[in-house]
Amino acid sequence: MSAEPFILALAGGVGGGKLARGLAAVLPPERLTIAVNTADDFVHLGLHISPDIDSVLYALADLNDPERGWGLAGETWQFMDALERLGGETWFRLGDRDLATHMLRTQELAKGRSLSEVAALLARRLGIEHAVVPMSDDPVRSIVDTDEGTMAFQDYFVRRKCEPVFRGVSFAGADKAQPAATFATVLERANAVVITPSNPFVSIDPILAVPGMRDTLLGRCIPVVAVSPVVGGNAVKGPLAKMMRERGMDVSPLGVARHYGSLVSGWIVDDADRALAPAIEALGCRVRVCNTMMHAIEDKTQLAREAVDFALKFAAEPALT
Amino acid sequence: MSAEPFILALAGGVGGGKLARGLAAVLPPERLTIAVNTADDFVHLGLHISPDIDSVLYALADLNDPERGWGLAGETWQFMDALERLGGETWFRLGDRDLATHMLRTQELAKGRSLSEVAALLARRLGIEHAVVPMSDDPVRSIVDTDEGTMAFQDYFVRRKCEPVFRGVSFAGADKAQPAATFATVLERANAVVITPSNPFVSIDPILAVPGMRDTLLGRCIPVVAVSPVVGGNAVKGPLAKMMRERGMDVSPLGVARHYGSLVSGWIVDDADRALAPAIEALGCRVRVCNTMMHAIEDKTQLAREAVDFALKFAAEPALT
Repeated sequence: MSAEPFILALAGGVGGGKLARGLAAVLPPERLTIAVNTADDFVHLGLHISPDIDSVLYALADLNDPERGWGLAGETWQFMDALERLGGETWFRLGDRDLATHMLRTQELAKGRSLSEVAALLARRLGIEHAVVPMSDDPVRSIVDTDEGTMAFQDYFVRRKCEPVFRGVSFAGADKAQPAATFATVLERANAVVITPSNPFVSIDPILAVPGMRDTLLGRCIPVVAVSPVVGGNAVKGPLAKMMRERGMDVSPLGVARHYGSLVSGWIVDDADRALAPAIEALGCRVRVCNTMMHAIEDKTQLAREAVDFALKFAAEPALT
Repeated sequence: MSAEPFILALAGGVGGGKLARGLAAVLPPERLTIAVNTADDFVHLGLHISPDIDSVLYALADLNDPERGWGLAGETWQFMDALERLGGETWFRLGDRDLATHMLRTQELAKGRSLSEVAALLARRLGIEHAVVPMSDDPVRSIVDTDEGTMAFQDYFVRRKCEPVFRGVSFAGADKAQPAATFATVLERANAVVITPSNPFVSIDPILAVPGMRDTLLGRCIPVVAVSPVVGGNAVKGPLAKMMRERGMDVSPLGVARHYGSLVSGWIVDDADRALAPAIEALGCRVRVCNTMMHAIEDKTQLAREAVDFALKFAAEPALT
């Protein structure tokens, strides 16, 4: 391995953005690329919206709203209020400032640019030096299977507030999608992969559903370190615990570890879940226990250091069998 | 003439909106329709923007900004600031609340609705009872001829702030445009027409350029009363005086009267221009002199009363020859 190892992070929205921010603080741009889920992208009010890419970009630019968990800090809602008055669709909240991102993306895509090119443009304009790449420039869409039938991801997640019983998710278009060129290149040269604590079903699985991704990852025999999105029997954020329960899964890092299976070689679990370490190790993974709750920038940076250190130490050791 | 005469108003943006507001205060919905210029419509950031229709709608709903002269009162500019940060196009100012109107219009047009249907929808949603109809549902675009060549209207008007020397204007698409159905119907049954004090070149002339409009208007022999957009040697608002000077025209109600020619049978000029009445009458028009400056709602209402009264008295009298 080179003296300057290169890390590929796989990220969804909020949890992904937080750890990405920490990783960007401890690794220079030439040693980190963040590949982001685009299966919750959708077109709304004529705008192409990429919620996870924007969450990661806003987090890296320190523009994200830490209270709300999504969107921009200091956001205003004049547009939404006016649209409501006009009887427009307001179930998906678009802030006045956030709207500029969607508008610019939509315009650039209409000019024929790719999602990757637009993400790079936005990153540059926001002063972000680290590469943020969509998993694919092709449309892949999460379709959620529920007790009320299948529905588009944003219908399930935002419009229906995850109320229907979750049965599973499929990724429409994934079979025909190509990984984005930068993502594919980075995947070939990464010395380790960090899976951020995003929702496995709808944030990380879509990335792994891009043809070839899972096999390449397994075939390269590099450490794949994941941070558990479940802490102390609950999801740190979002509907993950509910989704896991409804799938009959154990709502714990062990449940998540079983879900990813042999793909993940090292788990980082929170201090609160120390007791589960032996059970996870019994699956054939190494485990590191530390604080995984990311409130302040120091938490993000510290967790990023742990993840990088764990992955790289790991790569130097003989594989478990 | 019926006991309940019906008035058709022709309107551009700001001046049109002001007098339309007055007319709507003195005439019930079944006695007034406002036909609005759409030749300064354009597509910007993927949005279909109809500046004059929106100015009239906002004025009728008492939502317009009286200081700025365009857009909504209490408007905010978070979207523009964010777009500027992202390096987007900001020469055309779009307020956060105003954006909702453009977004809804664009969506509805994309669904296959006409400009007329969208204007009716917006009016309904804004609580406006009077009919506001675009001159045409077909695209007609003002192309301004200047000393620097021809340019699209918004490029001349907003981007270049009317700095190039004005030579004239043509209406691209006008030859193939049909009058909007409501406009055509109303034109057939109106007992009088009121031309609001909007810019003749770029607000009223485009309406008259819709095929058949001018001939129908002349052929119906109904009073056409116009309120002068020039008062005391200057335009009440906007670049009209500059445009008239650059065309070698007399910057006065007389200059405007000469421009419209035989189309207008009665002129309303401001008290400040009383001395010009004989010269305008010498063109074959009747003239009424009163206050035409519309600051408060009382001014708008009073001027609307004058215009309606003038037009209807007129219709009862024998024609001048």
